[in-house]
Amino acid sequence: MTEPLKVAVAGLGTVGGGVIRLLRQQSDLIRRRCGRAIELVAVSALEPPPDLAAELAGVPWFGDAVTMAQDAAADVVVELIGGAHGVALRMCETALEHGRHVVTANKAMLAHHGTALAERAESRGLSLGFEAAVAGGIPVIKALREGLAGNRILEIHGILNGTCNYILSRMRREGLEFEAALADAQRLGYAEADPTFDIDGIDAAHKLAILASVAFGGPVRLVPDNVEGIRHVTAIDIKYAEQLGYRIKLLGITRRSGALFEQRVHPCLVPIETPIAAVEDVFNAVIIVGDFVDRVVLVGRGAGANPTASAVVADLVDIAAGRHAPTFGVAVADLDPIEPAPLSARVGAYYVRLMVRDEVGVLASVAGALAAGGVSIAQFFQDRHDPGEKVPVVLTTHATDEASMRRALDLITGLGPVMEPPRLIRIEPF
Amino acid sequence: MTEPLKVAVAGLGTVGGGVIRLLRQQSDLIRRRCGRAIELVAVSALEPPPDLAAELAGVPWFGDAVTMAQDAAADVVVELIGGAHGVALRMCETALEHGRHVVTANKAMLAHHGTALAERAESRGLSLGFEAAVAGGIPVIKALREGLAGNRILEIHGILNGTCNYILSRMRREGLEFEAALADAQRLGYAEADPTFDIDGIDAAHKLAILASVAFGGPVRLVPDNVEGIRHVTAIDIKYAEQLGYRIKLLGITRRSGALFEQRVHPCLVPIETPIAAVEDVFNAVIIVGDFVDRVVLVGRGAGANPTASAVVADLVDIAAGRHAPTFGVAVADLDPIEPAPLSARVGAYYVRLMVRDEVGVLASVAGALAAGGVSIAQFFQDRHDPGEKVPVVLTTHATDEASMRRALDLITGLGPVMEPPRLIRIEPF
Repeated sequence: MTEPLKVAVAGLGTVGGGVIRLLRQQSDLIRRRCGRAIELVAVSALEPPPDLAAELAGVPWFGDAVTMAQDAAADVVVELIGGAHGVALRMCETALEHGRHVVTANKAMLAHHGTALAERAESRGLSLGFEAAVAGGIPVIKALREGLAGNRILEIHGILNGTCNYILSRMRREGLEFEAALADAQRLGYAEADPTFDIDGIDAAHKLAILASVAFGGPVRLVPDNVEGIRHVTAIDIKYAEQLGYRIKLLGITRRSGALFEQRVHPCLVPIETPIAAVEDVFNAVIIVGDFVDRVVLVGRGAGANPTASAVVADLVDIAAGRHAPTFGVAVADLDPIEPAPLSARVGAYYVRLMVRDEVGVLASVAGALAAGGVSIAQFFQDRHDPGEKVPVVLTTHATDEASMRRALDLITGLGPVMEPPRLIRIEPF
Repeated sequence: MTEPLKVAVAGLGTVGGGVIRLLRQQSDLIRRRCGRAIELVAVSALEPPPDLAAELAGVPWFGDAVTMAQDAAADVVVELIGGAHGVALRMCETALEHGRHVVTANKAMLAHHGTALAERAESRGLSLGFEAAVAGGIPVIKALREGLAGNRILEIHGILNGTCNYILSRMRREGLEFEAALADAQRLGYAEADPTFDIDGIDAAHKLAILASVAFGGPVRLVPDNVEGIRHVTAIDIKYAEQLGYRIKLLGITRRSGALFEQRVHPCLVPIETPIAAVEDVFNAVIIVGDFVDRVVLVGRGAGANPTASAVVADLVDIAAGRHAPTFGVAVADLDPIEPAPLSARVGAYYVRLMVRDEVGVLASVAGALAAGGVSIAQFFQDRHDPGEKVPVVLTTHATDEASMRRALDLITGLGPVMEPPRLIRIEPF
């Protein structure tokens, strides 16, 4: 039997606690699966959490994570502190400099510094594991990097943020407005007190950038211009989408598009019969399209102490068993930067909702503006309304490029009877 | 750059052709992902297929696969011949004896000889890869053995045979009877001329035995008494199931059940809103439940040249990159045999359809027989019928053990007005 793999864990919040408990509870199982034990040799947190007292008895404790990364007698350091640029990053850099593997759940750090960290790990022959950074317990990084290694990846799309999916699911089922659903999600612990990262799509964009890098073998790259969250999704749009046979989901989408690649996060209308439309509440889903395998759908819990701990420990088991893969699927020197396409280059169908004054000729003007923009209408309806109220007008388009769509919307916005800025949501057929 | 990984392929049918084409087409990509090339150094088939002439030009050809396994200068032998006990097995044994890794898509061979082959591979420090043997392109073996390695697996259930799922999907959508749907599947190449292995559940049982072994860390074990195919599924049962909110799917199910484990293949009614009910046509699905990760759903193409080639090549890439995992998740000496539970021990709900003569008291007798058997009725309805015809009576039960259910069915079968043997289908709520 080989020596135990010695692990130091920094950050003892929800996920850290899950990892500590998993390692303790499944120690026999892990030993059988790795051929060696995984041993906790140090932890770091601002304060030792009282509920982990039993598990942490006798384990050396560091107040400073960077000091731990430097001094603890660990083969691997697990980073569960969070934050893109601060102590988490310094700790990972320090661990790698001292010849220790790193396992992290930190998507923000990887989205900003992933390539540099990968280079640092690679130059020392170390692993940088990050299964837990994307889609929680779903082993999507392993599937992509190893399980589908024979494929040229053509596209990935997915529900990458459980908070948003929970909010949208509640809005649809109960007819709630965004603010009410968010408040409930916060009350239940599914959304943070400051929910910005989740609801503005930033968290999903971090994960998508990582997935795109692994899928296409390029440096990790954020494309912040192509990110839109769910703040502006309304109950009425969810209702109309459903009438038209769609559900609204916040999706991350990345695909090859000629010499460029698309990488965007925004709410989408997806046909109700697609597998992704059925993924509700806090569940995540990732759909990978490869040239040989065709379409693979992965669904599971995208967050939470236990599913995320499952992903962290999978990386530890790989290290313990001596299994190694290049961080983003290929050697850093082989990463091939390709340019992201601007959102204006998107070609696809659109959902548009207007609120208009009910007067003679308004529909003709709207239709005229779309025609002038070169946009072809697929469906068009005006909802019932009481006299004198604003009238909702809903339409979907045939496939058009986003630049034309925006020109048409500018024309529509300028029409006298159009009383609110038009609501535009992209339709993805999949 | 390391030396190329030298690969010999035996069996040049559909999947073999896919593997040869993939290796050729993606050679650059594979080289970047493994850090070395994968080189085809020998092939074996009864006759060299003319459509692969370009890809096979200059590649040494063996008429006998066992001779190739012995003599070809290969690091890995890929077995795509098929058949549980014949030349495929002898070739794999020979390859391992000669220090060559084996990659195979042969579920029948693994179901019968998997443990012995794993032992032979392990004793020589070789890999025995079989991602392609279960669920085609879906990287489920990797997910289970590595991606979820921190979990105690509680349950796996899935649609493991695309032929059956295609037939059931066509029957449901078009109201076809089994024979008509099978004939169409054969015409379209989705079913073999002799479809026995698929439609009688044997193929699914082979795959389930492999999954159970990896999930629970036990020797591979077929439980033939617990296997039932789809020959007896009728259009009318599919229709009634739908009326009750269910779809009929052929499922493989394995779960821990006290000191025993369940391992069974049979048609099931599954609630229409579960993800598995939405998996249609030739797609496969595997749902894994782990104690930390909770539920992970994997869906993709379970057969076909390209998806299966994707899985074969994933195993080759792992070998090329030096990644190794124990065949069934743990060392052979650590495999822990647990006993399969008999089907009579199943506890769950049931769907029953009877055809009765419409006469006074018949429903009372049926209800009485169920009560006498200790079975509690959940739903009960009698369909409309023309006078004088046989009357369909459909019922579902609350959870009961299968032994009680069978006792009640025996009583019902003996009732005078019951004109056909009752149809029993198990309900799985998931």
